[in-house]
Amino acid sequence: MSRRLKVAAAQLGAIHRADSRKSVVKRLVEMLKEADSRGSRFVVFPELALTTFFPRWWMADQAEVDKYFEAQMPSPETLPLFELAREKGIGFYLGYAELTEEEGRARRFNTSILVAPDGRIVGKYRKIHLPGHNEHLPAAPFQHLEKRYFEVGNLGFNVWKMFDENVLVGQCICNDRRWPETFRVMALKGAEMVVLGYNTPTENIYHPSEPPYIRVFHHLLSCQANAYQNGIWVVATAKAGKEDGFGMYGCSVIVAPTGEVVAKAVTEEDEVISYDCDLTLGEYIRNTVFNFAKHRRIEHYKLITERTGVQVEPAN
Amino acid sequence: MSRRLKVAAAQLGAIHRADSRKSVVKRLVEMLKEADSRGSRFVVFPELALTTFFPRWWMADQAEVDKYFEAQMPSPETLPLFELAREKGIGFYLGYAELTEEEGRARRFNTSILVAPDGRIVGKYRKIHLPGHNEHLPAAPFQHLEKRYFEVGNLGFNVWKMFDENVLVGQCICNDRRWPETFRVMALKGAEMVVLGYNTPTENIYHPSEPPYIRVFHHLLSCQANAYQNGIWVVATAKAGKEDGFGMYGCSVIVAPTGEVVAKAVTEEDEVISYDCDLTLGEYIRNTVFNFAKHRRIEHYKLITERTGVQVEPAN
Repeated sequence: MSRRLKVAAAQLGAIHRADSRKSVVKRLVEMLKEADSRGSRFVVFPELALTTFFPRWWMADQAEVDKYFEAQMPSPETLPLFELAREKGIGFYLGYAELTEEEGRARRFNTSILVAPDGRIVGKYRKIHLPGHNEHLPAAPFQHLEKRYFEVGNLGFNVWKMFDENVLVGQCICNDRRWPETFRVMALKGAEMVVLGYNTPTENIYHPSEPPYIRVFHHLLSCQANAYQNGIWVVATAKAGKEDGFGMYGCSVIVAPTGEVVAKAVTEEDEVISYDCDLTLGEYIRNTVFNFAKHRRIEHYKLITERTGVQVEPAN
Repeated sequence: MSRRLKVAAAQLGAIHRADSRKSVVKRLVEMLKEADSRGSRFVVFPELALTTFFPRWWMADQAEVDKYFEAQMPSPETLPLFELAREKGIGFYLGYAELTEEEGRARRFNTSILVAPDGRIVGKYRKIHLPGHNEHLPAAPFQHLEKRYFEVGNLGFNVWKMFDENVLVGQCICNDRRWPETFRVMALKGAEMVVLGYNTPTENIYHPSEPPYIRVFHHLLSCQANAYQNGIWVVATAKAGKEDGFGMYGCSVIVAPTGEVVAKAVTEEDEVISYDCDLTLGEYIRNTVFNFAKHRRIEHYKLITERTGVQVEPAN
């Protein structure tokens, strides 16, 4: 008998700097209701889903930056989302900027959580592949200061059992989806589904001549290849639209373990997409072409964990 | 100034069991001439390019199997190809079944070589990700006995400097292209271009309900994702067509570092495709989104080289 899970990706349109958390949570709540009306039992919200994508702004004053962070979760503002989800028996993924006191100091991470249908936070992830830069780039049309505002995640890549079916769910965030290492580690821990949120600018500030369609293509290519090459479901949810004039693409997708896009957002606004995922679909892939135990040759992979950057090393 | 290399993929149609090596080499020579007429300086031939894809046949007699292997390279039969390539100043990649005496015993590998424009064999690769099975599957429409007829390659994944431009060329074979580990190791050694040949059955004997179009999609998805995720050129050349009635898809491709297919075969026959590759195109990718030194976090990748198969390991 096939194990199934009805999943939704709840894409957010723009959140402007002036928008309150309360107004955003109201939008999340509306989308949770829409997902519930379709029978979805798992809703994937975006990365940094409670505020504008603030790393685009240079802020010298840490107190100003910290206004975009959450010191508790759930917070008074987000509690309505948690309560409604528990009432409906829906699990969810939510991304937010996390301010925490650890090792005797304030620490800041780009974080996501998995919340079980009973309202418990069962899993936390802190973004490992932080893109962007540290320094102010005054000539750029906008900044991408994730390397400044966040520390590199310190919790690794993990999977968690969720739902009555004990679905093995992994999570990551945005730029992590471009790195095959992200998905491979979770697949080696048994992941059947990996969920993630993202905020991806339509424009490449480092290479302005790159056409926007290529950037969407790279998003799709990464999600599809990582799904196929691990035989897992991938759910990727955008925050999209023009935030105070700065565009981010949408194109939220649910991708089958065959690498096929089975649901896709068509707007850059608040939009729910959903699919009834057959969790057994990936088994034939994981048991044949990607039967890791049978085919992986880790003795030839050593460089992947021994060397960080490129070292030109021709054999002749 | 951009560094460029004109490259061709020389796809082979069917080679039947009865076909002689001499007849095959004649076809390779014809395609080399066609590539030369287009100004190509590097020609990528398929995997096991000199014979039928013999791992589809169960053979109990090792002497019968060994008829498909080459004990020397170049051999008298392949010498015309080497001589013409040297005369034209063309480098090439060629796949063949290698029989060698090493460590005091006969050893058999699924091998490819890189031949420089001056005729020297500069690089050798022995296939690491051997697909298929060891045992006879009498119920299957055909066999896939690579795990029986070959040893796992023992030379690792490498890159070689080729041509006046010192292009860093990596090589792999067929099923290797599905594994991100293959390309990552070569990229960490500086690869700018990875070339490979393949023989991929149109039908999935392990999962007969898989539609043929999905199999071609997986081929393209793997080549495109690995190109993009390492910012490198990928050239992938098929042996295609119906060999004694057993179909293999074509769809040879040249893929840019952006992940875009820039040339593609449209037949399942002998067919040359070619492209003038700008070797600098991948630099913006390797220097920004996939700047490994800046973004890779090997401390979180350990499992990739520590664990071969899946071990279900939920964090909750």
